[in-house]
Amino acid sequence: MAEIVVMRAVTSDNKLHADNVRKILDDNGVIGLNLMSSPGAGKTTLLEKTIADNPDIKFGVIEGDVYTARDADRIEKTGAPSIQLNTEGACHLTANMVEAVLPKMNLKELDILIIENIGNLICPSAFSLGTHKRVVLLSTPEGGDKVLKYPAAFHRADAILVTKTDIADAVGFDMNIVLDDLKSVNPKTEPIAMSVVSGEGVDGWYKWLRGLLKK
Amino acid sequence: MAEIVVMRAVTSDNKLHADNVRKILDDNGVIGLNLMSSPGAGKTTLLEKTIADNPDIKFGVIEGDVYTARDADRIEKTGAPSIQLNTEGACHLTANMVEAVLPKMNLKELDILIIENIGNLICPSAFSLGTHKRVVLLSTPEGGDKVLKYPAAFHRADAILVTKTDIADAVGFDMNIVLDDLKSVNPKTEPIAMSVVSGEGVDGWYKWLRGLLKK
Repeated sequence: MAEIVVMRAVTSDNKLHADNVRKILDDNGVIGLNLMSSPGAGKTTLLEKTIADNPDIKFGVIEGDVYTARDADRIEKTGAPSIQLNTEGACHLTANMVEAVLPKMNLKELDILIIENIGNLICPSAFSLGTHKRVVLLSTPEGGDKVLKYPAAFHRADAILVTKTDIADAVGFDMNIVLDDLKSVNPKTEPIAMSVVSGEGVDGWYKWLRGLLKK
Repeated sequence: MAEIVVMRAVTSDNKLHADNVRKILDDNGVIGLNLMSSPGAGKTTLLEKTIADNPDIKFGVIEGDVYTARDADRIEKTGAPSIQLNTEGACHLTANMVEAVLPKMNLKELDILIIENIGNLICPSAFSLGTHKRVVLLSTPEGGDKVLKYPAAFHRADAILVTKTDIADAVGFDMNIVLDDLKSVNPKTEPIAMSVVSGEGVDGWYKWLRGLLKK
């Protein structure tokens, strides 16, 4: 079972801690991603699939959860190094938490460090973790109306993944509402519609990821 | 379009405000429910269906959202009185918000007041709104592992509705994990598995609601 590191959220001086994280990542040539969504939108499943399908990219994962090591246990099975962070109540990660566990990762051997934030579409977006990019998932069963209802997460997203498109019809998902709402909330980021079950759209996500490595 | 009341969260003295809310509800013979879940678990859809199927119960609804009046607009169409509360950022309702809008509702004419909290499985559970009962939704696409990952919401729930069972097979939902986890988190509350699409289990929910009116 994955080791669990329990951390308290420190919101003061978050920018200082985020700057430290960014420097450590840059010094080691690692791209950092902050992965955010509602609970159950498919963050961990996306990581399992992404790691399995891209064996030439060296991924590391920090799994943020309120409780349990369930997600890190799943990532462990992919062979990628992972650390489980538990907040035991706090609704988001803070940069000091990431800073504290970075020494546990062999950053020199990583290309991309993905930090899976707490399942929550509100709080995590307010706290930079020092990552280079923010990736936000919206799963089709949540409904197409969520961009305007929870705009902060989507406003600052560098990639927006609309997940579980294989059940879009079954849940009556309307992509047009998402596209309409993004015109005001985040007009520069085109959402990637995808499903790790059907495989639809995963190439677009992998292309976006690989674009980060070229820079 | 529904009127939007914008309120700031006041977390100090929340118990005092919650006590006031409870007294006002009791004085008017109204049962209050605090409805909580992740975004898109089906809270508003549940209310639309519940109001339509039970015309003899006089429902009122307070819709909590970070932004937009989308949910209150949906409830308005059912004919039930509704008020839209926007927190403009805060991840949960507080009792002072409910207290402030209660005078806008004709409580003497209601049997049950349902307060749809912000879509968030973490923060809302920490703040009493003065309601008599807490109802928590877990939708099958979120996955069966969420009870132990987000225990606070489920621990204090008086009713647990496992929604969207019509797509349970399509999303690989495992009810056994929910039942196992509830043994430690909330052994006294038996979850009601239901779908407003197929109609499965809705009778169990209506029976639970009607049980409140008898008291």
